[in-house]
Amino acid sequence: MRLVTYSTHDGSRPGAVVPAADGDRLLDLGHVAGSVTTLLSDAAAMASARAAVAASDPSSLPVLDPATLIAPVMPGKMLCLGYNYRGHVPDGAEPEAEPEHPDVFVKTPNTFGGPNDLVAIPPGATDVDYEGEVAVVIGRRAQRVSIEEALDHVAGYTILNDVSDRAWQRRQSQWALGKCSDGFAPIGPWIVTADDVPDPQDLLVEVVRDGEVTVSQSTSTTIFSVAFVIHHLSQVLTLEPGDIVSTGTPQKLPAAQEVHRPLAAGDAVTVRISGIGELTTRFTSPLTSGLTTGSTTAAPDQEATA
Amino acid sequence: MRLVTYSTHDGSRPGAVVPAADGDRLLDLGHVAGSVTTLLSDAAAMASARAAVAASDPSSLPVLDPATLIAPVMPGKMLCLGYNYRGHVPDGAEPEAEPEHPDVFVKTPNTFGGPNDLVAIPPGATDVDYEGEVAVVIGRRAQRVSIEEALDHVAGYTILNDVSDRAWQRRQSQWALGKCSDGFAPIGPWIVTADDVPDPQDLLVEVVRDGEVTVSQSTSTTIFSVAFVIHHLSQVLTLEPGDIVSTGTPQKLPAAQEVHRPLAAGDAVTVRISGIGELTTRFTSPLTSGLTTGSTTAAPDQEATA
Repeated sequence: MRLVTYSTHDGSRPGAVVPAADGDRLLDLGHVAGSVTTLLSDAAAMASARAAVAASDPSSLPVLDPATLIAPVMPGKMLCLGYNYRGHVPDGAEPEAEPEHPDVFVKTPNTFGGPNDLVAIPPGATDVDYEGEVAVVIGRRAQRVSIEEALDHVAGYTILNDVSDRAWQRRQSQWALGKCSDGFAPIGPWIVTADDVPDPQDLLVEVVRDGEVTVSQSTSTTIFSVAFVIHHLSQVLTLEPGDIVSTGTPQKLPAAQEVHRPLAAGDAVTVRISGIGELTTRFTSPLTSGLTTGSTTAAPDQEATA
Repeated sequence: MRLVTYSTHDGSRPGAVVPAADGDRLLDLGHVAGSVTTLLSDAAAMASARAAVAASDPSSLPVLDPATLIAPVMPGKMLCLGYNYRGHVPDGAEPEAEPEHPDVFVKTPNTFGGPNDLVAIPPGATDVDYEGEVAVVIGRRAQRVSIEEALDHVAGYTILNDVSDRAWQRRQSQWALGKCSDGFAPIGPWIVTADDVPDPQDLLVEVVRDGEVTVSQSTSTTIFSVAFVIHHLSQVLTLEPGDIVSTGTPQKLPAAQEVHRPLAAGDAVTVRISGIGELTTRFTSPLTSGLTTGSTTAAPDQEATA
């Protein structure tokens, strides 16, 4: 099941994307739950949503308008991994070096955005970069869970472009200021529920820029699996429904590294992940992005108001 | 003016602490604003609050019950500084070394707590430590503000104990897992509004543990001033009303370093800051802390419900 949050004239509502012969249709789920986060955390509501999808006649549903989609969830917290793919190592490290522990950082709420939010290149930023990532959405509170039970706490998967300002990232030991500019965490377009992702360690993560594939690597090459990461984080802190844990980015392909240039206004980057979908993020300058930058189009709690 | 959030039988409400001859009294401000964050961000509401305090007869107000105080604000984001006091340097660095840029990290919402929240020592944690800090509370949105105008965006000041698990902090380059255990950011007991803090670079930060002063250093010895830090952060991201920017901890006094032992269940640590107040945090084991650990006593939006 693909879950979305979509905007209407009087607020945002949860919905499911239902395939029809001629394309995707939208099934409103506002009668089942007030938000996707509520839905994910409530087994009975999820069962109702599945039943509603199964009972629906796709041809009678409205065509999905991708322009109405906002961030599928507004996470309480977003934790991200660095250097989690084999072959992606810090500058100066041995290419085969593997860390003993995941390197974890935080993206703040001002970074959160959806599939239609433009991302402004901050004034003076000279080295803004993209990172295509599988983002895990928590469905059930996780507190000191074992590796074996960790995936039971995962509601589903979405896509994150972990936009990063490398110049700021290099200025201090901690990466926060390189990771937390407004709008630097667009997610979406939807959450694919975990039952539709048979193996999170068998997904192909690709990034397309200017028509060229710049990243192409399977999650089978991660150092730390989704199950391990959820287990690991939950030893330290409590993960709550709607929280996002992003699993890191693969290294760019050699050819892409050679021609890489920092992102600029007018660029578009597509992250596509097999079995999940694709997320295209357009970059703009601050002066022209105005109110559509960052998470300003998503209500903080994303409750349905109608 | 000292602003608090206090819990009642039917929710939490903003209030002001009004001194009387025999101790502090509580003036409810629920009629002025739904929460302290709303109050801080609304000049008219702040004027009403000040007028209400000025017009109040302290002797007719209820005695302040410190046990009712919860976190004065529930921040949208909390950004913290490392190594911001002269003499406090990373392991291995020259004692006189001074960074060119502030080192900034994030504490996640699961860490947020108030003055009466117990902090659980996580199971197996062997090196939990305290850090006494001046925490700046944002009152007005700050986006690329100059140093000169930065303090206009500060609503006031509170106290943070930036509790840290040094063992986790040392395991990876990023400090998040050492900083983000549940309840590891108690703040309070109140916010002193900026007009009552004539110079944020002239505050004495002290920590008292087991009756001994273990930290005692003035904010005049910070490397980066409050004004600079707000300016600096606002170049990268937008600070919103209620956000907290914490200014780092001084190094422990030499005698305290010699006898330092990690925090354990049963310990209590008091951070006191001249002109602001004092925050005592009690540490407990997870099994006995139950529902009072972390931010569980604070409603997420802290809106008054009555």
